[in-house]
Amino acid sequence: MGKPYVVGIDIGGTNTVFGIVDARGTVLASASIKTQKHANITDYIDELYEELSKLIVTNDAVDKIAGIGIGAPNANYFTGEIADGVNLPWPTPIPLADLVSEKFGIPVAITNDANAAAIGEMTYGAARGMKDFIMITLGTGVGSGIVINGQMVYGHDGFAGELGHVIMKRNNGRTCGCGRTGCLETYASATGVARTAREFLEARATEPSLLRNLDIASITSKDVYDAAMAGDKLAKDVFDFTGNILGEAFADFIAFSSPEAIILFGGLAKSGDLLMRPLKESMDRNTMAVFRGKVKLLMSELKESDAAVLGASALGWEAKAASDINKKK
Amino acid sequence: MGKPYVVGIDIGGTNTVFGIVDARGTVLASASIKTQKHANITDYIDELYEELSKLIVTNDAVDKIAGIGIGAPNANYFTGEIADGVNLPWPTPIPLADLVSEKFGIPVAITNDANAAAIGEMTYGAARGMKDFIMITLGTGVGSGIVINGQMVYGHDGFAGELGHVIMKRNNGRTCGCGRTGCLETYASATGVARTAREFLEARATEPSLLRNLDIASITSKDVYDAAMAGDKLAKDVFDFTGNILGEAFADFIAFSSPEAIILFGGLAKSGDLLMRPLKESMDRNTMAVFRGKVKLLMSELKESDAAVLGASALGWEAKAASDINKKK
Repeated sequence: MGKPYVVGIDIGGTNTVFGIVDARGTVLASASIKTQKHANITDYIDELYEELSKLIVTNDAVDKIAGIGIGAPNANYFTGEIADGVNLPWPTPIPLADLVSEKFGIPVAITNDANAAAIGEMTYGAARGMKDFIMITLGTGVGSGIVINGQMVYGHDGFAGELGHVIMKRNNGRTCGCGRTGCLETYASATGVARTAREFLEARATEPSLLRNLDIASITSKDVYDAAMAGDKLAKDVFDFTGNILGEAFADFIAFSSPEAIILFGGLAKSGDLLMRPLKESMDRNTMAVFRGKVKLLMSELKESDAAVLGASALGWEAKAASDINKKK
Repeated sequence: MGKPYVVGIDIGGTNTVFGIVDARGTVLASASIKTQKHANITDYIDELYEELSKLIVTNDAVDKIAGIGIGAPNANYFTGEIADGVNLPWPTPIPLADLVSEKFGIPVAITNDANAAAIGEMTYGAARGMKDFIMITLGTGVGSGIVINGQMVYGHDGFAGELGHVIMKRNNGRTCGCGRTGCLETYASATGVARTAREFLEARATEPSLLRNLDIASITSKDVYDAAMAGDKLAKDVFDFTGNILGEAFADFIAFSSPEAIILFGGLAKSGDLLMRPLKESMDRNTMAVFRGKVKLLMSELKESDAAVLGASALGWEAKAASDINKKK
């Protein structure tokens, strides 16, 4: 019989959270360390080993871990490395899968945060039983994890699924952190909502808005949400704009892979009808007739506090296969 | 040992072409019948049976056919049916896979033309050995077949891969046959090239062009090609415009599935550097840094006269599996 548990590790810019998870998606126990505490990756891995080992011993899980799954920015499933361009204190590429599997003697698989979220949703959440879906995370940025024929889409190089960076405005698009302009993420993320609010406040200079009581330069998507919930017209228009552009993007994604569902996750996704109503309307209006009305729009079913660890842990079940691919390279 | 041959059938609006193909992609023999000759689908299948049987007997292929693959407009791999909205003389949906397999006693798989082209390219052509690529057919319209993890992308309903219908212009886009506006196909197809030429001729009314010697209402992409090859500035600009918009679209496709290659097929794809130079430049300029320079742009390696039959035939190798799916539904 296989081992009953997996470990999920979510490496964020501030915290590294890890937990022990069973096959039904119950997080038996979790803990965290500070990601940026050690200038040296070896010291970081040592602390992770020490703290995670305690958790494993305390929960009677010694020799019962089938694999370790790690979600981390720019983490590549094929190479087992964290690629360049991330806000972590260590030189890249970081051979993360090898470092962790050598330390623990357990197979390790890694992927980026959005892919981990998709695998988590497929294993324990709203996408159980689905073979074709797209996970969209609406947070500071817009991330995506795509599943086709029951398999994660990594592309030929391990970096597929950058749907936050399809171009929605080809003229006068907003500048994006990726170096280009007009990316979906510059409009449909939490920061995008704040940018839209600032643009609307400037363009509609004579229109009253609750948002004008705030320091406009530091408005957040939460401020816009609160104002919209209080009935502010301009703030509601910001959500209409955001939902509309997201629906336009989803219509194109549907033309690509005709998923059974698009599943939303992340802070901005919890805006309720403010976002969902214009999003659904726009998706219906923009989708090609052959697909119209066939694609479900769902919310993640994973508890937010557990989701990152759960998503990463789900990858642990296939860690053996991933580490074999990794060794062949 | 498995049977050594497959049959490929390509059902077009005018002709139905069929051939016997071996495992190396050699077309042993081919023939055709008129698609629109029979008002009744049964009569059409009867004539197909008669003519194809002759071919099989003549080529000593009796009991040597592993499967029949069919490429047809709106053909659905999962249901085995031709769906609504096609220019064929029979009532839809047409249970094509069942009709043909019952007549011949051989497993049948069907899919649309662009998917068949992709499978053909993967089995016998430029995509041999590739697990992730996108086939784009630039003909009267823009078709696509997407392969991910070595598998055709059919989506949850069998209709995935409508990349001719991603929206490239969200304001004042050209009207498309699909009922929406701004679709890639309205710009980057043979008919799109002719539309661009007419627009340019009107907008640049004082600029001389060889195209002005023609009946402007009936200009074709071939006319534009000939004028551009003769050095006509306006005609060359039409190809620059076309290549540019195609490169913008490809950059978005790459963000989705990070393919090893995008493979071009169809009449317009044979425009040489006129199209390829602006297309490559635009694709490089518009692609996200992480993917830039990594995606090959290739031409189909299938001989055009054989490609439709070859593509359909390649599906014949998996016809047994497809007909099993079909029966489960």
